[in-house]
Amino acid sequence: MVGENILKELSVKTDSKIVLVVMDGLGDLPNSEGKTALEAAHIPNLDQLAARSVCGLTDPVSRGITPGSGPAHLSLFGYDPIKYQIGRGVLEALGVGINLTSDDLACRGNFATIDKDGIITDRRAGRIPTETNEKLCALLQREITKIDNIKVIITPGKEHRFVVVFRGEGLEDGISDADPQLNGQKVKYAEALRAESEKSVRIINRFIDKCLEVLKGEHPANAILLRGMAKHPNLPSLRELYKLNPAAIAAYPMYRGLARLVGMNILETGETIADEFLTIKENFQNYDFFYVHIKKTDSYGEDGNFAAKVKIIEETDQYIPALLELNPEVLVITGDHSTPAVLAGHSWHPNPFLLCSRYIRVDEVRHFSEKEFVKGGLGRFPSTDALTLMLANGLKLSKFGA
Amino acid sequence: MVGENILKELSVKTDSKIVLVVMDGLGDLPNSEGKTALEAAHIPNLDQLAARSVCGLTDPVSRGITPGSGPAHLSLFGYDPIKYQIGRGVLEALGVGINLTSDDLACRGNFATIDKDGIITDRRAGRIPTETNEKLCALLQREITKIDNIKVIITPGKEHRFVVVFRGEGLEDGISDADPQLNGQKVKYAEALRAESEKSVRIINRFIDKCLEVLKGEHPANAILLRGMAKHPNLPSLRELYKLNPAAIAAYPMYRGLARLVGMNILETGETIADEFLTIKENFQNYDFFYVHIKKTDSYGEDGNFAAKVKIIEETDQYIPALLELNPEVLVITGDHSTPAVLAGHSWHPNPFLLCSRYIRVDEVRHFSEKEFVKGGLGRFPSTDALTLMLANGLKLSKFGA
Repeated sequence: MVGENILKELSVKTDSKIVLVVMDGLGDLPNSEGKTALEAAHIPNLDQLAARSVCGLTDPVSRGITPGSGPAHLSLFGYDPIKYQIGRGVLEALGVGINLTSDDLACRGNFATIDKDGIITDRRAGRIPTETNEKLCALLQREITKIDNIKVIITPGKEHRFVVVFRGEGLEDGISDADPQLNGQKVKYAEALRAESEKSVRIINRFIDKCLEVLKGEHPANAILLRGMAKHPNLPSLRELYKLNPAAIAAYPMYRGLARLVGMNILETGETIADEFLTIKENFQNYDFFYVHIKKTDSYGEDGNFAAKVKIIEETDQYIPALLELNPEVLVITGDHSTPAVLAGHSWHPNPFLLCSRYIRVDEVRHFSEKEFVKGGLGRFPSTDALTLMLANGLKLSKFGA
Repeated sequence: MVGENILKELSVKTDSKIVLVVMDGLGDLPNSEGKTALEAAHIPNLDQLAARSVCGLTDPVSRGITPGSGPAHLSLFGYDPIKYQIGRGVLEALGVGINLTSDDLACRGNFATIDKDGIITDRRAGRIPTETNEKLCALLQREITKIDNIKVIITPGKEHRFVVVFRGEGLEDGISDADPQLNGQKVKYAEALRAESEKSVRIINRFIDKCLEVLKGEHPANAILLRGMAKHPNLPSLRELYKLNPAAIAAYPMYRGLARLVGMNILETGETIADEFLTIKENFQNYDFFYVHIKKTDSYGEDGNFAAKVKIIEETDQYIPALLELNPEVLVITGDHSTPAVLAGHSWHPNPFLLCSRYIRVDEVRHFSEKEFVKGGLGRFPSTDALTLMLANGLKLSKFGA
């Protein structure tokens, strides 16, 4: 992509509407019968749409690089994922639904077990049940609300996982993990990796001491480990950069959080794909950019459940006609990264990318699949170019140079 | 490619084996019958392999740029050839089989003829026979073994060409050629292009004076010209960067030298393609990355000998089944650059690139040829991404970001 600054200068406000549908982890690898989930799925609406669109394949970070959800989404939103690296703590905070502010320093936490000499015997405290976790977080939060002028926000995750957010002025990242990553070691304190983070380190280490104090009668969760300390990234917003008024429709907290990081309005929606497509219909007049996130293609890919991934794709296909009735000037249907069921995890393979607008050269693609999109008119390109293409097709970019 | 530092952080050690077969100068242009060497060759094994692989075309440096062997190979090994420019002296030293150390400063030398006033009358000393060259180099080496604390290593090449390596502490490059590049000029001394290279320049110029002294009774080779003074590039090794334990199988010294620069173990092998494929078989258990170099596709391309180039490709094809029996997790067959017989030299055309692993989307390519690979699922990409793709397919890279 050209730099954000150039793109910002070129961008103009228009009434045209852009819809970006992200089927998470959509890309796949052939199963034992030689078919990807897209090839196995019965998707007449997506196939018809592909036949009158321009298609291609995208690389979220770079060829061969498997992206996490953070970098994969940032790319699609037009942010260089190498320049804007979102820390683990921030992503975890987004994942549990915390509304981060630009003052926040977020950390991923584990409940752990230590013996009487302070040696870690289990970094995950026997994977305590989530309910125990919730009780312990409530206990810690009751006892620890502030350290000096810094607010402390403790939020449970699943099993032994929790998130702690330190909120206040003067916090900085550049902090070592307070986690030796191995059983058999002593509880570890955070260390400043640069001078600016010394204040944050003092706060974090006092927090650790307070937790050890509060938890000392508990078993097995009598200690905590913190890692991935990360400052809110303070990304320039899509409004500021491209004069967009964007809205996000996502059933999962992590993706609402990522959308909030780039300044999208978060629309209330339900748990199902039907809910999400209803939400876009109800709000279609109020925004000019819609990000619709479908999670379960990725979840089932991660589970190695090929058949269920196929079903989610087929389910999504049914909502395409209603989406087309809204008549957006620009429609993109793509994935953020591949999650092949055979790998049961994210992968480096490029993502099918379909763009439909009035101003395209329809190509020879006739089906919505990874293999077919190799023939696509958009070719293979970095995901960071996706937003530029959407803006261009929405006539939201003026000419570069005279 | 993403930066080496990011790739280094992502890389993990696994048992999977990667085989990279480089047919030097493989890419071609159509001959008078409209066929490239690959299209004219009978290569049933490569064609079958292409039909179950994912294919594409690579640019070693950039579209339209004709690379030398150094940059073309560095790209394939994952090093940015613009960032890491290997000096002429170093490549010449590798070409004559010198094991360079990180202390070395290497120069390309010519024997030349000067008249009684010191004016160069022939920059190549009438292209003296190689045997004369060898005798003269031995003579010079007898008389000049050290200058101050710097060891001097003189190695003959073909005809009038030789290599001199200065070995010792404190040598630096950034030195002008001691070669006026024209007959009719005086013998030229080296000059420092930066302050740090003044010591090296003094050593080099004393070496030139000593050579003129030793050679003054000889004819026609009574002088020397030195150029391409270059320091060993001290590349980070493939082991250091990507935790690989790599081995190189190459019959020609230059390619063993390039492989040594990136930290590969050099396996003893014979002169023929059969020898090279036997060597990989015998050593297959001992390494996790194999670079196999086939030289003569390039040599015959350089000679403009289309038919002989075709024969080398056909010969290589016969060893593919045995290679597949080794069952490497990742197999790549490609060229480093094109050497079309009609051009009788390297060219800027992209290289056929084939990748076979368990984790690919087989594409619509059915033959191993330049034209067919245009349809390939890998598309067209910079050679510097090749190693990333090999590592990814060997499951040797973890996820970028959470």
